[in-house]
Amino acid sequence: MPITPTATLKNGVHHTEVRVRFGDTDPYGIVYFVSYFRYCHRAIEEYLRVLGLPPEETFKNVPEGFGLPIVEAWGRFRRPSRYGDLLRVETRIQEVRDKAVVFHFEFYPETGRELVAEGTATLVAIDPDWRARELPERIKKAMS
Amino acid sequence: MPITPTATLKNGVHHTEVRVRFGDTDPYGIVYFVSYFRYCHRAIEEYLRVLGLPPEETFKNVPEGFGLPIVEAWGRFRRPSRYGDLLRVETRIQEVRDKAVVFHFEFYPETGRELVAEGTATLVAIDPDWRARELPERIKKAMS
Amino acid sequence: MPITPTATLKNGVHHTEVRVRFGDTDPYGIVYFVSYFRYCHRAIEEYLRVLGLPPEETFKNVPEGFGLPIVEAWGRFRRPSRYGDLLRVETRIQEVRDKAVVFHFEFYPETGRELVAEGTATLVAIDPDWRARELPERIKKAMS
Amino acid sequence: MPITPTATLKNGVHHTEVRVRFGDTDPYGIVYFVSYFRYCHRAIEEYLRVLGLPPEETFKNVPEGFGLPIVEAWGRFRRPSRYGDLLRVETRIQEVRDKAVVFHFEFYPETGRELVAEGTATLVAIDPDWRARELPERIKKAMS
Repeated sequence: MPITPTATLKNGVHHTEVRVRFGDTDPYGIVYFVSYFRYCHRAIEEYLRVLGLPPEETFKNVPEGFGLPIVEAWGRFRRPSRYGDLLRVETRIQEVRDKAVVFHFEFYPETGRELVAEGTATLVAIDPDWRARELPERIKKAMS
Repeated sequence: MPITPTATLKNGVHHTEVRVRFGDTDPYGIVYFVSYFRYCHRAIEEYLRVLGLPPEETFKNVPEGFGLPIVEAWGRFRRPSRYGDLLRVETRIQEVRDKAVVFHFEFYPETGRELVAEGTATLVAIDPDWRARELPERIKKAMS
Repeated sequence: MPITPTATLKNGVHHTEVRVRFGDTDPYGIVYFVSYFRYCHRAIEEYLRVLGLPPEETFKNVPEGFGLPIVEAWGRFRRPSRYGDLLRVETRIQEVRDKAVVFHFEFYPETGRELVAEGTATLVAIDPDWRARELPERIKKAMS
Repeated sequence: MPITPTATLKNGVHHTEVRVRFGDTDPYGIVYFVSYFRYCHRAIEEYLRVLGLPPEETFKNVPEGFGLPIVEAWGRFRRPSRYGDLLRVETRIQEVRDKAVVFHFEFYPETGRELVAEGTATLVAIDPDWRARELPERIKKAMS
């Protein structure tokens, strides 16, 4: 039976994997920096699922009147990785603030501990008019 | 002043251009077949604009109660093109049916008439319950 | 420990899964037709791995002097799927010809057997000058 | 005749435009943060062309033995933009160092001066072994 990627949470560190796909590289076969940001979003999605927060109801939640857009992102790309590589992604919640949460990402090769890339993404809670608001209590609790 | 790509319609043939971007190729520097389908969608968007049908109100139109999803697509990729290439795209409305419209695309190099790729995309009019319906009269008229 | 998607091959049918990601939809939350073609390529990659043909050495193989570009693709998109959905992908090798191989894809919802989308992709063997050639014997054998 | 986007350079500020395309948004119709990084790369490409540095020979140049990978990127996303929007992009070379160059981007709506998003990208010159090296003299000169 087919199995979806299993992610685990150990001491607050979320572990998942990402396979470098055919369209993820630059014309020279090296992972395009933009792809790392896509991988980061995927790691957030998987992390939220592990926390019991389905992404489909967390990035935008009409009944509860909030959204969680990404308002800032940063990445450093240290070593090239290539088509077909399997990368291990370690995700931490770096900071939970009243109205925001910051995720931190590290990418490692399939074997070894040489950092391939790292990054952060900041999500801010907004109300339906795109004004910053407090993080919903249940979100904050799940993330703390 | 910056200028957006100008598209023209001559004898029913819509002409536009597309530049092969950094993330559009496979790991060997050749345009990924998936990118051609993105280019096709862009050509439809530009074509609709020339017809006076803003894409933002045409692919989904809540007030008028219709949508126009792509239900079928086909492409043949004949010659490799590469990062940085400028491709000329010729788009025709191949067929307007009661409930559907078929676009046909041809991709040529910046100079020369050797076909790089071709394809089709079929859009069907649907009502808010995703059932096929007649194309709205004004859409049909603009496309005929 | 994190686990990558496990794919299985039963009676020649390759089973894998794909999660609809944040960037995979159109502006209305429905999977963009272009994303299905990306999913198809991923299914080919997984299928090749199961056959013992690492994609990194199969789509382009310089030492053995061949490439396997996709020269034709087709898709029909029957039912909408949405952000967060898990799709089951069934892939078959529809035909192995002297110089080409055709893959066939079916997408189903996580539960149920209502076809969401289907498609095909044709790969042709080429030599370093992009001329069609016989499929390498070991590739042909693995696929038959 | 079709015309490609014309970019201009005024007082060191490069002006171009980007149209938000069908696959560029999140499931809620808001531009996905990842798309802004793609737009940034496009702005660099256009800027390089204006400087007489064809991107195809500048990001990787085998004869001259250098590459220019992006080693760091940052973005802040202040206001939502949507499918079909036309964004104006202003790009500056923020800093030219011995071995690196930093680009700075600002995104504005088609009309008005409310900042939609901003970001930076750092490119480092490397030799064929991926070690940092001096920027090639002609690149440095063109960028200063």
